[in-house]
Amino acid sequence: MISSLLVALVALLVAAKLGGALAERLGQPAVLGELLAGVAIGALPLLGVGGLAFVATDTSVEALAGLGVILLLFEVGLATRLADLMKVGLSALLVATIGVVVPMALGFLVGRWLLPDHHWFSALFLGATLCATSVGITARVLTDLGRVATPEGQIILGAAVIDDVMGLIVLAVMAGLAGGGAAASSGGAWASAGLVTAKAVLFIVGALVTGRALAPRLFRLASRLHGKGVIFTSALVTCFALAWAAEVVGLAPIVGAFAAGLVLEGVPFGELLPEGDRLEDLLMPLSSVLVPLFFVHMGAQVKLQELAGGSVLLALALTAAAIVGKQACGLAVVTRGADRLAVGLGMIPRGEVGLIFAGMGLTLKLDGQPLLSAGEFAAVVAMVLLTTVLTPPLLRWRLGGAAGVRAPT
Amino acid sequence: MISSLLVALVALLVAAKLGGALAERLGQPAVLGELLAGVAIGALPLLGVGGLAFVATDTSVEALAGLGVILLLFEVGLATRLADLMKVGLSALLVATIGVVVPMALGFLVGRWLLPDHHWFSALFLGATLCATSVGITARVLTDLGRVATPEGQIILGAAVIDDVMGLIVLAVMAGLAGGGAAASSGGAWASAGLVTAKAVLFIVGALVTGRALAPRLFRLASRLHGKGVIFTSALVTCFALAWAAEVVGLAPIVGAFAAGLVLEGVPFGELLPEGDRLEDLLMPLSSVLVPLFFVHMGAQVKLQELAGGSVLLALALTAAAIVGKQACGLAVVTRGADRLAVGLGMIPRGEVGLIFAGMGLTLKLDGQPLLSAGEFAAVVAMVLLTTVLTPPLLRWRLGGAAGVRAPT
Repeated sequence: MISSLLVALVALLVAAKLGGALAERLGQPAVLGELLAGVAIGALPLLGVGGLAFVATDTSVEALAGLGVILLLFEVGLATRLADLMKVGLSALLVATIGVVVPMALGFLVGRWLLPDHHWFSALFLGATLCATSVGITARVLTDLGRVATPEGQIILGAAVIDDVMGLIVLAVMAGLAGGGAAASSGGAWASAGLVTAKAVLFIVGALVTGRALAPRLFRLASRLHGKGVIFTSALVTCFALAWAAEVVGLAPIVGAFAAGLVLEGVPFGELLPEGDRLEDLLMPLSSVLVPLFFVHMGAQVKLQELAGGSVLLALALTAAAIVGKQACGLAVVTRGADRLAVGLGMIPRGEVGLIFAGMGLTLKLDGQPLLSAGEFAAVVAMVLLTTVLTPPLLRWRLGGAAGVRAPT
Repeated sequence: MISSLLVALVALLVAAKLGGALAERLGQPAVLGELLAGVAIGALPLLGVGGLAFVATDTSVEALAGLGVILLLFEVGLATRLADLMKVGLSALLVATIGVVVPMALGFLVGRWLLPDHHWFSALFLGATLCATSVGITARVLTDLGRVATPEGQIILGAAVIDDVMGLIVLAVMAGLAGGGAAASSGGAWASAGLVTAKAVLFIVGALVTGRALAPRLFRLASRLHGKGVIFTSALVTCFALAWAAEVVGLAPIVGAFAAGLVLEGVPFGELLPEGDRLEDLLMPLSSVLVPLFFVHMGAQVKLQELAGGSVLLALALTAAAIVGKQACGLAVVTRGADRLAVGLGMIPRGEVGLIFAGMGLTLKLDGQPLLSAGEFAAVVAMVLLTTVLTPPLLRWRLGGAAGVRAPT
């Protein structure tokens, strides 16, 4: 078993670093090259090279990639000051709300236009696949450009966390309505939406309030153990524990990891770590391996053959709705001096939540028909791929910064 | 899936760091505390606490732990100079040979004495479970004490690598003989032993010769990619690739990782890495998390209930044979000034290979009877546990050094 993991790591890491380096040479963020290198690995079986087909599905690789994106959001949380985040809180809330409602409405219209013989609920469901931003790509580009701590960066991150919660609420309502069929009791759906909201808000507020109160004391206690790497391990344990807690309440683990980064902002690592060490520097070797692994693995999971079965027009229309819909977000920015276009661009990438929606659409039935056909599912996958690949160059163009150089944040 | 991995990591890392710190406070190497903390976690189900029972069997945790011991041997290889290793080569070869033959003979005698009604081949098989040293424990203690680069450290490491190969040869012969039953064609068994030897020697010589010739050039090439963490990732890729190659030729992956460390000794990382970074320092955060994870996971896999079914006398006699047998190794040291007792103590720990032998003994049949009964298997497990737990304090006592302080090697 360890043998196949080693092969997968060698292949994915070599592909990630080559792809990343090539992208940077072309003036693009490394993450774009990593994604496309992953797509290339994923496409090898189509060329008759099947030896690496397992890397997209191996559970240990998946686990390491999952830790990679958790580490990324942890680092982004560490680079974020809670006070700065609060300052842009209203903008983030408005951006998230507009960013859920408008793309969903546009997606609904696309569905009604291109699939006129479908039930309106199918079109609404198609719209719902567009609502949640995938924060991984944007967080990575912001990190590469050294722009995490800017107002735009803070608004995007805050909005992405809020919109993760909103996506869950939409999911709860849609599943409740579809599960009950056309004659659904919408009361039950709304009650479960309320429960999701309450759990999410309680988790985030609870983690931040108790975490920031307890963390400095716990870390001082841990420092008295004097073991090798105790403080560094304690920081990782905090991250993993909150990521797990987030998943328990139904949120994405990366939301917990981001919260852990915010919590640890108040810990005086300068006093606790051996002289000269900074937590960010200790995390770097780990994340410089696992974070690219996440993105190249994400690319490898793209099934180009699935795209072939989809309607090109539907895919392009959905992508357009996804992009235009999130540009409306920019209008919701009330923070002075923040670049509205950059915020809109940063909200473009869609990912797991959209795919989860689409996957549910394949299985949920309305009047005996699945909500989404295989071709419509493929169109959603194409939308996720296109928004993901377009965001890095767009953000890079708008925010500038030194791609490939880690700015001191 | 990521959720259970996160819980496992939190539980194992907290247990490892607490156990390690406690051991160091008592003047013992951290690894002893990590092992016992793991045993405690593994025993929780016996106390009716079943929530963490999965950590011992979760494949993702196992994969991470496997990477941990690979990293440990990679670090040990990096701290080893090939020239120093060659200097003690004859001692290492003699130590390995004596360390395979004598414990096997003693184990055979124990079998004949305590199990007089068994076939002599069963007793020989019991003896074979004692032949291979588990280098992980010793390598870790040597690292903790800062004694990797001493003559004793080099002899133990060299002998452990050689004895891994010898263990494989014994395994090939025994399996060939047992497979053929009492009327086995021993010719086939010896041919397969010759094949195992040839593959192992070819791998080690080939990896070192071609690796040391190519690595500096490849790393200079990689440095021209200019990406974040390219050199660090390339070093890890070298380690994973050789670990994989070792497994392909039938050796343990850790032998490949150790070879990778030796190969990279010739690469001028001082010129290639950003100013002030050393490869060892970049590896440290990673290994300070994954290496303890390996040992606490190893402890968690101990099934105390299995020990209960074994004969205490057989377990103690096997342990005595295992310890006394390896002390004969000391007599084979021809390097001047090397501490013979320390070498003998360093060869004591038994691990995976012994357990693999014992597991095979449960399934191989001779005249319709399994070679080893469940009780005899349990005695072998107890021997592995006892030799593993006894080695750290014994080596610490003999070699001194600053436990818990990472000496500059």
